[in-house]
Amino acid sequence: MGNTFGKLFRVTTFGESHGGVVGVIIDGCPPCLEISEIDIQKDLNRRRPGQSKITTSRQEMDNCEIVSGIFNGLTLGTPITILVHNKDFCPQDYDEMKSKFRPSHADWTYETKYKTRNWQGGGRSSARETIGRVAAGAIAKKILKQFNNVEIISYVKQVKNLRAVVNPNKITFEEIENNFIRCPDQKVARQMISLIEDIKKSNDSIGGVIECVVRNSPQGLGEPVFDKLEADLAKAVMSLPASKGFEIGSGFKGTLMTGSQHNDEFYIDSTGNIRTKTNRSGGIQGGISNGENIIIRTAFKPTATIGKKQKTVTSDNIEAILSSKGRHDPCVLPRAVPMVDAMVALVLCDHLLRWQAQCKILK
Amino acid sequence: MGNTFGKLFRVTTFGESHGGVVGVIIDGCPPCLEISEIDIQKDLNRRRPGQSKITTSRQEMDNCEIVSGIFNGLTLGTPITILVHNKDFCPQDYDEMKSKFRPSHADWTYETKYKTRNWQGGGRSSARETIGRVAAGAIAKKILKQFNNVEIISYVKQVKNLRAVVNPNKITFEEIENNFIRCPDQKVARQMISLIEDIKKSNDSIGGVIECVVRNSPQGLGEPVFDKLEADLAKAVMSLPASKGFEIGSGFKGTLMTGSQHNDEFYIDSTGNIRTKTNRSGGIQGGISNGENIIIRTAFKPTATIGKKQKTVTSDNIEAILSSKGRHDPCVLPRAVPMVDAMVALVLCDHLLRWQAQCKILK
Amino acid sequence: MGNTFGKLFRVTTFGESHGGVVGVIIDGCPPCLEISEIDIQKDLNRRRPGQSKITTSRQEMDNCEIVSGIFNGLTLGTPITILVHNKDFCPQDYDEMKSKFRPSHADWTYETKYKTRNWQGGGRSSARETIGRVAAGAIAKKILKQFNNVEIISYVKQVKNLRAVVNPNKITFEEIENNFIRCPDQKVARQMISLIEDIKKSNDSIGGVIECVVRNSPQGLGEPVFDKLEADLAKAVMSLPASKGFEIGSGFKGTLMTGSQHNDEFYIDSTGNIRTKTNRSGGIQGGISNGENIIIRTAFKPTATIGKKQKTVTSDNIEAILSSKGRHDPCVLPRAVPMVDAMVALVLCDHLLRWQAQCKILK
Amino acid sequence: MGNTFGKLFRVTTFGESHGGVVGVIIDGCPPCLEISEIDIQKDLNRRRPGQSKITTSRQEMDNCEIVSGIFNGLTLGTPITILVHNKDFCPQDYDEMKSKFRPSHADWTYETKYKTRNWQGGGRSSARETIGRVAAGAIAKKILKQFNNVEIISYVKQVKNLRAVVNPNKITFEEIENNFIRCPDQKVARQMISLIEDIKKSNDSIGGVIECVVRNSPQGLGEPVFDKLEADLAKAVMSLPASKGFEIGSGFKGTLMTGSQHNDEFYIDSTGNIRTKTNRSGGIQGGISNGENIIIRTAFKPTATIGKKQKTVTSDNIEAILSSKGRHDPCVLPRAVPMVDAMVALVLCDHLLRWQAQCKILK
Repeated sequence: MGNTFGKLFRVTTFGESHGGVVGVIIDGCPPCLEISEIDIQKDLNRRRPGQSKITTSRQEMDNCEIVSGIFNGLTLGTPITILVHNKDFCPQDYDEMKSKFRPSHADWTYETKYKTRNWQGGGRSSARETIGRVAAGAIAKKILKQFNNVEIISYVKQVKNLRAVVNPNKITFEEIENNFIRCPDQKVARQMISLIEDIKKSNDSIGGVIECVVRNSPQGLGEPVFDKLEADLAKAVMSLPASKGFEIGSGFKGTLMTGSQHNDEFYIDSTGNIRTKTNRSGGIQGGISNGENIIIRTAFKPTATIGKKQKTVTSDNIEAILSSKGRHDPCVLPRAVPMVDAMVALVLCDHLLRWQAQCKILK
Repeated sequence: MGNTFGKLFRVTTFGESHGGVVGVIIDGCPPCLEISEIDIQKDLNRRRPGQSKITTSRQEMDNCEIVSGIFNGLTLGTPITILVHNKDFCPQDYDEMKSKFRPSHADWTYETKYKTRNWQGGGRSSARETIGRVAAGAIAKKILKQFNNVEIISYVKQVKNLRAVVNPNKITFEEIENNFIRCPDQKVARQMISLIEDIKKSNDSIGGVIECVVRNSPQGLGEPVFDKLEADLAKAVMSLPASKGFEIGSGFKGTLMTGSQHNDEFYIDSTGNIRTKTNRSGGIQGGISNGENIIIRTAFKPTATIGKKQKTVTSDNIEAILSSKGRHDPCVLPRAVPMVDAMVALVLCDHLLRWQAQCKILK
Repeated sequence: MGNTFGKLFRVTTFGESHGGVVGVIIDGCPPCLEISEIDIQKDLNRRRPGQSKITTSRQEMDNCEIVSGIFNGLTLGTPITILVHNKDFCPQDYDEMKSKFRPSHADWTYETKYKTRNWQGGGRSSARETIGRVAAGAIAKKILKQFNNVEIISYVKQVKNLRAVVNPNKITFEEIENNFIRCPDQKVARQMISLIEDIKKSNDSIGGVIECVVRNSPQGLGEPVFDKLEADLAKAVMSLPASKGFEIGSGFKGTLMTGSQHNDEFYIDSTGNIRTKTNRSGGIQGGISNGENIIIRTAFKPTATIGKKQKTVTSDNIEAILSSKGRHDPCVLPRAVPMVDAMVALVLCDHLLRWQAQCKILK
Repeated sequence: MGNTFGKLFRVTTFGESHGGVVGVIIDGCPPCLEISEIDIQKDLNRRRPGQSKITTSRQEMDNCEIVSGIFNGLTLGTPITILVHNKDFCPQDYDEMKSKFRPSHADWTYETKYKTRNWQGGGRSSARETIGRVAAGAIAKKILKQFNNVEIISYVKQVKNLRAVVNPNKITFEEIENNFIRCPDQKVARQMISLIEDIKKSNDSIGGVIECVVRNSPQGLGEPVFDKLEADLAKAVMSLPASKGFEIGSGFKGTLMTGSQHNDEFYIDSTGNIRTKTNRSGGIQGGISNGENIIIRTAFKPTATIGKKQKTVTSDNIEAILSSKGRHDPCVLPRAVPMVDAMVALVLCDHLLRWQAQCKILK
């Protein structure tokens, strides 16, 4: 029952990896917004498999089709439905996984919970499900852009032990799209790509960290005490496949400081606005955005599906050896970048509508 | 609008620090469960201020009163309301904060969003709000205990740079309650307490990390794709005051491993059950609990309110100096331990009911 | 789990008839709205028992206390909690109902569902629960008034076979409050009161119909396809104790007309606005308010609890005779008038916020 | 934002009349339920246009396609998506409605609210939207059947002034499907059909009443105080196009009785079960089902779209004359019968899951 995200800008994804279709419904989108398939396709292309030598070789163009909610190029205020047909099926690649559970994957827990599962390509637990998120995120980003020129920019910060040096306040979209790995530190990017190629050859996988910055963040978003903005952001990215950790602002490192070192001093800037000198808060204080850049980081584990032989068990409770054949990414990070963008956009857009409802009705 | 948590086991908290009352309503609690104020008071006592020399000196006994939903000692299936009256008010301590915003606190963002705020003791952004969470968590824990003898045990893992050595699979509740800081590594606990005392004297504050282990975790909890169990756990703890980061299982460190190192091998145990040899997954795979211990960590920043002088601004947009007088904790961790316990219990209990609804109706 | 109403303006009621307290939490209320206990008490007084010779003799002043969410007379944007303490308990009156189920009451279904119940005064199924609704409705009405001078006026249209003649477009609040029964047709009102007095003497009860008109209704409220405004209004009043039917506009009588007779012709009024000549639609078309007066009717059955002897069964599955002693209304209608007002206000206020969120964000 | 129905068995419909596709997503369906397109097509065929001489002449086979959520004939527990492609478009028929608002239709209110609309065939306000409801209802009915052999049977009770004589406790599905109008009183059915044919010839329309009986109703469904079973049923059917009124059990007529006449006496039946002698309650007491047959009635107004000339206004605020050309039903009732079935099934199935969650977890 957990396939809907958001309270007002509501996104429901559906579809299995090797079912006929994956897609998304967006309910609650403001009317009269210009949206075309081109807006959405741009982001889907950043997510699609087969886009470079360091992603899975599954070939899907992921062409999207909007089948409801748009008329004469404008949103109607009714549910927007976007479909993407699965094309490049290889169910036979998954024959072995029909009975053998991939370690650290969703195979066994789905089987345990539902007593059935679509074992082809991971079924619903496949990252193909995120197509719907990315498509919806493209619309959310357009609303945010139109509202306050909000920019959401994610990039690879770390792959295994390789760390990029990045200034989140300055980075451009072009610097990120400049290489396959989507890391704006071009030198480290090359090392990361080379490392992923090596790992791929060894039939193994690696993980890393994606950082996301939101610039021109609106003030006042977030609903304490449970729907604090950072809480909803944490949920959003922790619902992505392979994510294992979340930080905002100073994050885990902030625990090494004292309060007097950590607190962000307020000052009045040249235009008379209240600002903070530092941004260890990561753009959110007390669960509400303060207008400074929002900065979060998400840890992604190494891909669970690997070609290397692994010990596992079968659905008949027998111990067995598995070497997975299905096509898979040696490192999910380059394709996870647009996923993080999308999830952050969905959270912000939903909270923007919530703020508008509660805080603007009597003004 | 964000004051309700959970979908089926629904918890709504209310109340300001210096308003008359703080409390909670729990809707959706199973009927015929034995609950008394004693069950709840036990946990509230672990959270209450003034419990030791390393917590705030505000003196509140936090005596709770159940005013609805229980009859003859049993839950009725109707909403349970629990009230705690605020007693030890010192609004005058906050006079300065009426106009001066505390750096890295919620003062300014509340003011910006709502154009008003209760400045006494932080109002709604005060940790007093968590009384309702802890009270509701006590009931959730009882349900989980009764269902599968589920144990939820949190403890302080790190204070500033002091790290405890702990085996989450073995630790007992008594070892945690054995000292003020709630760290089961008794030697490091003493160092932590001493460090907090020093920090307190210097009018500063520190933070750290709380780890939580869930033992006898039921299998099958979690609702992909958005309401994955780790996503809801992340949201739960990231909604606690002062939290800055979340990890499950291997967390950020897991990004340094390869897939073949990171994956948790399956095997058949002596009773014929499917188990994993390691637990880097932290008890959840594909968003669904696998029955292994759930292990999460939450980073808490140093308390924002400190006695040291800080630069800030006033509500009239003038730069100013603030040295906070209000009573506050030099380190939130010992009192955050029962809060983490409670939030984890609320997530698990809600997901238990969701699992029961979808997966047990046709069996 | 069904104790919360609304999506954005969220109202949760709690409390049993003879428990300590009944009350309500309102989450999502816009900030900076002036609210005092006087605003709320006015409406509670219209609902309270013992207000006239034709209501129950239970004496409750129903004095309300706001214990959170208001500071210096203004809403904070945080949850507003309102409490009313139960005073005039007579649990002994209900001794017989501990084991004997009242026919057509909630006694048996609560017992069947929850396997326990508070049998004192009907527990949660008592109309005392509606105190919370009326209190929340007072706030909703204030928001609607401030937004567009919206007026919500309910009145008794029919008691048993006595029908009032009323022009909903002209009626005033004073005409309704002019008599105990709250019927603006003063002549029929006297007959109704006299009929209720007779019924009371005979230890029996009667029902009737309440009509509600909303004037200065905003245009554009209602969210097709499921949350159409009339659908949410229907749910709202059908959740009131003793309601058995709902109509909007022409209602059941409209089924006797042809389309050409029933359709509301559009025209341009003297100020250039689009209006309808007739209002068989009842102010809502296609699930969305059109700005004409909203007109709905709710049928209330005769009170289930009566003094007359009735055949029933006991909790031990034995047939028995019951003559109820508890104090009760011979006719719920006069006290149901403010309840209908409140429920209509809650629906409109919630939809106002929803409209604001979706339709005003990009304007 | 109102396109999702249900809390646990969650149904989201999408699509416009002349958009490419209409359909539905069902989230929360129990896993391992056998479902095929045949199960769903059966009900869609009862709803489809062009099925008889008394319905619209639009020719749509409404063939459904399940594109997610089913694998090897079993539900996966993941979202089920069902699509129906629109085929028989005639946008040109609606050219006039592009600018002229149909009286008592949704044209103007959609325009007012969203500032845009799909004017072809009514867009989202078309009854084609109910395809998704009927498809989801087919699955809900299967769950209810499997759980307790629950039967949901709707039929036409009244067309204009023609009233059928029906015993809801005995009626069979075959008697209803025996004629085009779906009225089990065969003699009155012939009169109804003849009346509709006459009305069609005169370019006018008529309405009526549909009654629905639920047999083998489970006990204990319904969640006071707001989500009472009758409240959710009222909302469900009042969200259907053209509905104007709702009754349960004795309904509006019950207001003419005294309490002693109206109350349903309890007795012990031959198998030792508690039953009621009469059923004026309509199977629900205190908001919770008591196991007796649930009986509700819904009033449907005459179809708003008629061929007769009508006065109206244009989107340029000019008064005008409209004679609608689009194909439409002279009477919605025969096709509304499966819609009522579906909405009742969705409510019961959702509440069944809610009951299972709260009331069966600790047993």
